[in-house]
Order: sequence, then C-alpha cells, then structure tokens
Amino acid sequence: MPNPLVSDRFIDFLLSEVLDAEGLCRLPAFSEHSRATFRPWLDACRRVAREVLWPAYEPMDHKPPRFDNEAVLVHPAMRECWSSLVSLGVLNATRPPAVGGQHLPLTVATLAHAYLMAANLSAYGFAGLTSGAAHLIEVFGADEVKALFLAPLYEGRWTGTMALTEPQAGSSLGDVSTIATPAADGRFRLRGAKLFISGGDHDLTENIVHLVLARIEGAPAGTRGISLFAVPKRRPHEGRLVDNDVVTSGLIRKIGWKGLPSVALSLGDDGDCLGWLVGPEHQGLKCMFQMMNEARLMVGMNAAATASVAFHEALEYARVRRQGRALGVNDPAQPPVALVEHPDVRRMLLRQKAIVEGAFAVIGLAARFADVSEHAPDEATRSEAKLLLDLLTPIAKSFPAEKGFEANTLAVQVHGGYGYTSEYLPEAWLRDQKLNSIHEGTTTIQGLDLLGRKVVAGGGAALAALERHVRAAIAEAKAKDLTFIEPLEQGLEHLLRVTATLGGRGVSGDVAGMLAHSADYLDLASTVIVGWAWVSMATRAHGRGDDFSRGLTQAARYWLATELPRTSHLAHLCESNESSYLDLRDEWLG
Amino acid sequence: MPNPLVSDRFIDFLLSEVLDAEGLCRLPAFSEHSRATFRPWLDACRRVAREVLWPAYEPMDHKPPRFDNEAVLVHPAMRECWSSLVSLGVLNATRPPAVGGQHLPLTVATLAHAYLMAANLSAYGFAGLTSGAAHLIEVFGADEVKALFLAPLYEGRWTGTMALTEPQAGSSLGDVSTIATPAADGRFRLRGAKLFISGGDHDLTENIVHLVLARIEGAPAGTRGISLFAVPKRRPHEGRLVDNDVVTSGLIRKIGWKGLPSVALSLGDDGDCLGWLVGPEHQGLKCMFQMMNEARLMVGMNAAATASVAFHEALEYARVRRQGRALGVNDPAQPPVALVEHPDVRRMLLRQKAIVEGAFAVIGLAARFADVSEHAPDEATRSEAKLLLDLLTPIAKSFPAEKGFEANTLAVQVHGGYGYTSEYLPEAWLRDQKLNSIHEGTTTIQGLDLLGRKVVAGGGAALAALERHVRAAIAEAKAKDLTFIEPLEQGLEHLLRVTATLGGRGVSGDVAGMLAHSADYLDLASTVIVGWAWVSMATRAHGRGDDFSRGLTQAARYWLATELPRTSHLAHLCESNESSYLDLRDEWLG
Repeated sequence: MPNPLVSDRFIDFLLSEVLDAEGLCRLPAFSEHSRATFRPWLDACRRVAREVLWPAYEPMDHKPPRFDNEAVLVHPAMRECWSSLVSLGVLNATRPPAVGGQHLPLTVATLAHAYLMAANLSAYGFAGLTSGAAHLIEVFGADEVKALFLAPLYEGRWTGTMALTEPQAGSSLGDVSTIATPAADGRFRLRGAKLFISGGDHDLTENIVHLVLARIEGAPAGTRGISLFAVPKRRPHEGRLVDNDVVTSGLIRKIGWKGLPSVALSLGDDGDCLGWLVGPEHQGLKCMFQMMNEARLMVGMNAAATASVAFHEALEYARVRRQGRALGVNDPAQPPVALVEHPDVRRMLLRQKAIVEGAFAVIGLAARFADVSEHAPDEATRSEAKLLLDLLTPIAKSFPAEKGFEANTLAVQVHGGYGYTSEYLPEAWLRDQKLNSIHEGTTTIQGLDLLGRKVVAGGGAALAALERHVRAAIAEAKAKDLTFIEPLEQGLEHLLRVTATLGGRGVSGDVAGMLAHSADYLDLASTVIVGWAWVSMATRAHGRGDDFSRGLTQAARYWLATELPRTSHLAHLCESNESSYLDLRDEWLG
Repeated sequence: MPNPLVSDRFIDFLLSEVLDAEGLCRLPAFSEHSRATFRPWLDACRRVAREVLWPAYEPMDHKPPRFDNEAVLVHPAMRECWSSLVSLGVLNATRPPAVGGQHLPLTVATLAHAYLMAANLSAYGFAGLTSGAAHLIEVFGADEVKALFLAPLYEGRWTGTMALTEPQAGSSLGDVSTIATPAADGRFRLRGAKLFISGGDHDLTENIVHLVLARIEGAPAGTRGISLFAVPKRRPHEGRLVDNDVVTSGLIRKIGWKGLPSVALSLGDDGDCLGWLVGPEHQGLKCMFQMMNEARLMVGMNAAATASVAFHEALEYARVRRQGRALGVNDPAQPPVALVEHPDVRRMLLRQKAIVEGAFAVIGLAARFADVSEHAPDEATRSEAKLLLDLLTPIAKSFPAEKGFEANTLAVQVHGGYGYTSEYLPEAWLRDQKLNSIHEGTTTIQGLDLLGRKVVAGGGAALAALERHVRAAIAEAKAKDLTFIEPLEQGLEHLLRVTATLGGRGVSGDVAGMLAHSADYLDLASTVIVGWAWVSMATRAHGRGDDFSRGLTQAARYWLATELPRTSHLAHLCESNESSYLDLRDEWLG
C-alpha cells in the first residue's frame, strides 16, 4: 500500500468529532463555510500531497540545491510542486477574499496542510514562508508596501522569507545588528549579514521578499530598537525589477529539509539595498511576535506531519517484513511472523501513533482557539481563547518536535538494518525532524515562554481556563465509564500544584528559581495536555467496535498508563528545585 | 581547545580508583603487567587517536568509499589510520604473546580503545572487525585454519569481517540460508547472499577473511543447523592468492560510519567459493555467541565514545559561544553570556556527562568481570564474574546506544542552528550513533536477552550477585555520608521485586507474560545499574574539593535524582503488565 502520509480517517474524526470544525461556521467570519466547503479543500490538499509533492520528496532529498556563486538552483521537481501549491491556493487559504483567499478556518487549513508537510516538508516550506511574509505585510504594512508586495506574494509569483537570524544573534534577537539608515524617500538603506535564511535564494520565482529584522540607526539597544523591513531581492524600479544589493554569500549545508535552500545573505555591501518599513519603527519584534503563534503552530505541524509519514512507513514495513517467530516458539519449520506480531514492535508502533495523533490533536485544539480568539463575536470568548492559544502554543510547537523526533527514531528502529540506509526513507525524516526543536524558538525557549510568560499571564487565568476544559473532558469521560482516565486527573493536580508553587517563587521575585526547571515543567504540562487530547478522543471513540475506534482507545490507554504517571516525578523535580545542574560550575564539567 | 575526545582525567580515575585495574595484575595471566605497562598503552592510544584518526574523521565522513563495480575504494586517509592502528598493536592487544599480543586486560584495552573509537569510529571499525574475526579463528579454528589466517589477520596484512546477516535473516539468524557443500578436501563450497557486511570489501589490504554463518547441506533447520566458516576474498593457492568467487554485489548507502564500507556479497555464484569450517559442524551460532559478550561490549563502547566526543564538542561550544543574557537580566548594554551560563544548557551538558561517563563506567565494570571470569584462579570467582558479565552485557550494549543517542541529540541542540549543518560535527556523530541500537542485536533483543536469559540464569544467581555488589556500594557510600543515594536503594528494591514477579510468571510457563515489558525492564535495570556505577564513582570522589571530583558528584546527584525515581513507574508497568500494546491488533493501528 502506498504511504497515506496522514490517516484520512483520523483527520476526519479529529476535525468533525473532536474539534467541531463545522461549529466554527457559526462564527460570522466563517459563515460562508460548511462541511461542503471544507471537504473539497481537504481532498485537494490530499491529492496534491500524494500525487505531486510526495513523488518529489526523495529526489529533492537526494539532490539538494546547488550554488554556483551566482545563483541558487533548486531541484527541477520543485517547479511542479510550486505551481501546484499556488494553484491549490495554499498561500492565502486562511486569508479573506479581499486578498484573494477563501478565509478557511485555521483549524481546517492546518490539518489539511499536514498532508502537504508530510509529503514534502521542503516544498511546503516555500509556501509556509511566503504565506507568513505576506501575512506580516498584510497586517502591518502601509498601503504603499501592500500595493508593492502583497499580490505577487499571495499569487506565488514571488516568494517570501523570514530574515531574523544573524551569525551572532540566533535565540537572542535583541542582538540583531543589521543597520537601516533612512533614505530621502521614506525607504531605508540596509546593511548587514543574515544567516540560515530558508528560501533565501533560489531560481523558482523572479523575486524574493525578505522580512528583515534590523536596527534603525540610533535606535535603542536590545529588543526595543528593532524594526521590521520588507527587503526584496530585486526592487521594483520604473516598471521593472532591478537588483537590490542582496547577495547570497553562501549556501548552508543542512542535514535535512534538503529541498529548501538555506543561505547566508549580505545586505547592502554596495550601499544599495533598499527596504520598506513594515509596522511602526522599533516595533519589529512585536510585529513578528504577533505572528509567532501561527508560525509556531506551523512548526509543530511540520513536526507532527514528519512523524506521521514515518509512522505510516514503519507500520507498513512491520506488516510486510517477516522476521523471527513468536516468543516461546522455537520451531524453525514454521514460517517467520510479520514484525508487527512481536510485542515490542507493537509497542514502538503504538508509541508512534500516540505521539503523532496526540500531537495532531493538540495542534488542532490550538488552531481552534486561534480561530475563536480572532473571530468570536464577544470579547470574553475571544480573550479566553487567546489565553488558551498562547498557553498551548509552546506545547504545540515543542511536543511534536521533541517527541516527534523520538517517534522518527522508532520508525528507523522498526526498519532495522535497512533503516540505517538511505535506500529507505525513515532516516531522511529523522534528519528533517531535528530542525523543529531548534528553529522558531528552541525547546529551551518554549519552556521559558510557557512558564515565564504564558501560565502567569492574566494572573493565572490561562491555566484556570485550561483546568476547566480538562475537568470537563474528564467528567465527560467518566459519564461514559472510561476506566483508565485517573492518571489524567492526577496529572492535572500535579500541574496545578507545581504551577502554584513556581508562580509563588516568581511573585516573590525569585525568577531564576521559578524558571530553573522550565524543561521539566514543559514536559509535565505537555504530557498532561496531550493526555487531555487523548481522553477527549477516546471519549468520542468509546463503545464503538470498529478497528479505528479501538486503535484510538488503545493509544489513549497507552498514553495515560505510560506517560501520565511521569508527571509525579516531574512535579517533584520542579517543586524541590533539584539543584544538580543549578549549582554546577562550568569548570566542574571537565 | 582541541576536542579531547574522552576525558583523560576521567579514564584515569575510572581505571585506577573504580575498576582497580592494577588489582588485575594479581591474576597470573596479567602478572607481567603493572601500572607501568598500562600507562604507555593508554598514552599510545590517546596519541594515535588524537594525531592520526581524529584529523581523518571529517574527510572520511564527507567522502565515503566508492564502488566502481570492480573494487571498493576507501578514503585515502584510511591508509595512514590503518597502518597506525596496526603498528600500535590494537589488533591483538588483549591476546597472549603466543599470537603476538601483549595480553592486556580487556578492562584497560577497552577504555584505551575508547579514544580510537571517539576519534574515528569507522577507522576503528576495521580493527575491531579484524580483531573479532581473528579471535574466533584463534579460539575455534583447527590448526590448519589458524596457520592460514591467524598471522595475516593479527598482523593487519588482511582484514576480517562478520558475515552473518542475509536479506531475509537479520535479527533471526536461525533463518540463514547460505549453503555450504562439503568439498573432497575437507573444505566447503559456499553459495549464498550476505548483506550489510561492514568492511566486506575495500582496497586497504590484499585480502579479507569473512567469518560466514552458513548451513551445511542437509543440516537441521533453525539455529541448530548453522556452521561457521572462514571464507577469504582471495584464497591461498600454490603460494599465491587467487580469486575465491566472493563478489561485491552492492555498496550500501549508510547514513553513518561513512568511512567503513558496508556491502552486499554474493558467495559462490560461479560455484567456486571455498570456505574453511571454524569450530564444530552445526555449532556456528554457539561459537559466535561465545564471542558475543566481547562484540557487544565493543558496540557499547562505540556508542559511549561517540556520545563522549560529541559531549566534549558541545561543552567547548557552550563555553565559547555567547548568546543571550542571564534570566531576569534585560539590559542589552551588557555583553551576552556564554551558553554554559544558561541553566537549561547546563542541564543538557550535565545530562550528557551523566550518560557518557555512566556508560563508560558500566562498560568498564563489565570488562573487568570479563577479565576475572576468564582469568581468576578459582572456579567460584570465575563463574560469579561470568554471571555478572552476562547480566551486564545487554545493558552495557543498549544503554550507551539508546541514551548515547539522546546525548548526541543534545549535543546537536546545544549547537543551535549551527548544529543543523554539516559544517559542524555533532550531526555526524548523531548519524554514527544510530547504528548502535540496531547492529549486534537490536535493543529489543537486548531486553529479551536480559530478562529471558540473563536474570533467570543460574536460578537467579546473577541478580543475587549483582545485589551484593550494589548493596556493598551503598554501604560504602553511607559510611562516607553521601546524602543522595536513597533513590538507588529504592531502585534496587524495585528491580528485585519486579524480577521476582516476572520470574514467577516465567516459571509458571507464561513466557509471553514474563517478556511483555522487556523494554521497560531493560530501562529499569539499566537505570539502576548506571546508578550503582555513579554511586561508586561519587563515593571515590566524595570530600575532595577539586573541580573534577565536584563534577562527578554533580553528575551522580543528577542521575540519582532525575533518573532513579523513574524505576517506580517502570516497575509498575512490568508488574501490572499494562496491556495497551499487548492486546492491540494490527488492524487497529490504522
């Protein structure tokens, strides 16, 4: 059987029975939509993913872009991928008709796009970056800037990038040192070096628009002096495009996402790089961060999708490959059994399923809160949804990245010696996956964000809202006589208790003490929230006798029995402030 | 600072203060040895590792061997590596003078060879395979076979391989189908296909000797019908070497160990492949398994060494790379701090140290039991040591492979975006590492081996012996007032209790029930045994005020506080026989 990339049955179930996607159509913004409009979008994404992007994945992984010191040349297969993605309408699917979009709920779009990501992460990457850049300009750009850039980006004639990182400024964006000097005409002259710019150069479209973080000459130091600019590779000049002094100084040799070139850029070496301010001066990081939830959900979905395609590959392999006999059977005359017959292989497969589908569900929940937070008619609903979105985002980003990497590792392991070769695909997805714990905020940063900003936001209102949702799910599960949900109740208690303790430390001024175990706290909160997602899904599936529903129940049981009990220990580490690495000194490390 | 590969201070400490390497010289077999003979060996291995193998690592990783359908051509840098390894005497360092060796204790050799592995896993791989093949012939070969093969192998004029795997027989060696037909002269004609044969073809030496598992025509099916053969690439004939019908049918595109070619071999396509029986007919697997402890300790050390070199790289990077400010400091005018100043980075580094040095210690303990089991004058001491060696081997193999992979992942993570590029080395070690959970018995197999064979061996005598050692270490730690060892006591209780429960299931005939959570049991036992190693080390280091000793104490504290408490949960999973993946059916998985 060909790899389905993502399970149709699961996505349909998640959208209709867990996330109530149709219910979103009651929001005025989505009143034009219905099941009848969601379905063609899902079908179209599935088709493009399976028929166009997927066949191009392996060739693109094996033959990365070349840089001949003049131009960066992408794999030829990328052209058809790009035109299919553009025709599909993926660049502005969630945007309103005013900018050519069909205003799909993010919930629906995100889960449909999972197929495209699972099929070919690099190909989708061009679209995700272009979409993100255009969205920034749409929201923050002045009319002139929108007039110049928006249509070409949303129409896929140009692509976009996020040009944040510099050689000395990665996680610490406050240290960005690219300089923007006001030009006479309201534009700015930029000078600086940018690094790891995905899609930063290529021969796929006639132009590229970089969304660049830079410091206007004389601006305050740190994060409060950073502005956002649209800096095209070639700038419009008298009706044509002319070179804008954006030079590719190197092509990065990445270990994954091989189809998407990542480059080092020099801006303004010849003093002729012009940029258009996007948003207010010195508010660049703030603009960027307003888009951060969306960007981080996208990375989370990249990760979940990458784990999904590998899970399905491993599952098929385990069904087809025969090796060994059942435990206790020593008769060599009997034929070997399929790998999936071995309990420990089933454990590895069920663990992958629990991670993959748990991740999809959490991202789906976050996306739904995003839709509600933007479009609910009443302020109270919007603001509660926004709190929950903000709370879930670091988890929806880091859980799929970290546990997805574990799932991808298991997919390699299930393939045995064959998994260690590039004749099989699991190793490629393992390489692709590793980026997701690094870009758009490392896992360390997600932990600090969750604990230092999100849970204390609104005086603890976010966690209180979460608690209500989780308790409602528990009550519903109990009403249906689900017998295995106790570990979620305990996990929730641990989460609440630890949060109170750590919050107390923060309030008393001990910020370092509050954040010392942010990694354990992130793990704890993620485990509980994925547990909530699994209980919600198992409640829907409960009592049905079909294979699909039984599989969901087993994955839920697995997650609750094997992962939720860890929260007790994680809580203890946070509360006791276990200090082995806190009072450790550099020179003791050897 | 150049990467030290492995910490000299740590290895010296481990050998002299924890493993009492000098004490081994009281055994008659090692009476010629002393600290004065160990030291030059360590120094020489360190020098060759740092000066010869290490500079060749990156070039060999970047330019793997080529296969032109005639010959497999290794990287030119491999030649100097090989001649240095041969001159060093690494091929027979642990073998007696009768075969040209210096009869070093395995304990000393293993820890010295860690440097060579950390420097260049592929280069060492040629030596490890050659050594293993020669050792098999030395132990099981008839005089004629030894006369033909032993000297060229131990002298490094030829290399050796282990040719076990076939396309349809990986983990399940009982399904090997290569056929050996007796020839008139006592030799055998072989015919079959072998896969993933590391070092199976190359242009480094004039000949290669494959130790091949095959089935003599008419032999019983399954493991009891498999014999071992020495099958040279070119066979000695009238004073010269002639082609032996061993044909390379393909070069495997591996993801790591890139310097060591792995090939598919066709034996006897033209009916002219001759092999020499090694050991008794039909006892091939048994011979192979008698060498298995050594082979698995070597894989464990490959893994620990690969995690070590990455840890040291990450540590240096974290000291040099400046990024961000301390938690709570928002003053952009202050210079960025080194990564190592961030608590979560220190956590990642301390975790790597705890894994790497814990792994070295467990492998060192196993190697010491190997030395004692082979050379102690009295039978009782030998057999207790053998039980402990057998018990520790699956852990010394799988713990470094699994947790080492996690450590290697953390080393990439510490490098941030740079870690995602092949300009930096951590990604290469991550690729190298992945093989270690697959070859020489997957982690699944190690778990089944530990629980199904090792702990029940001798009526539970192995675990009883282990318990005595762990309790002695705990008593010693208590006498020195170590305050953090309680989790080890609890972990030990969990291990003993679970073993009794599972053993009871096995005795009552429920083998499947006993083995259902073999992965959790392996995790539990590994965590306890690494905990024992850390308590032993911390006891030695206790009360000393130097940086090195303090670092050991912190790593021990970290391991006991963060890992040992997991044993309670793992024990529960085993005892309750949590059944989510046991009663799962294939068709439910999606």
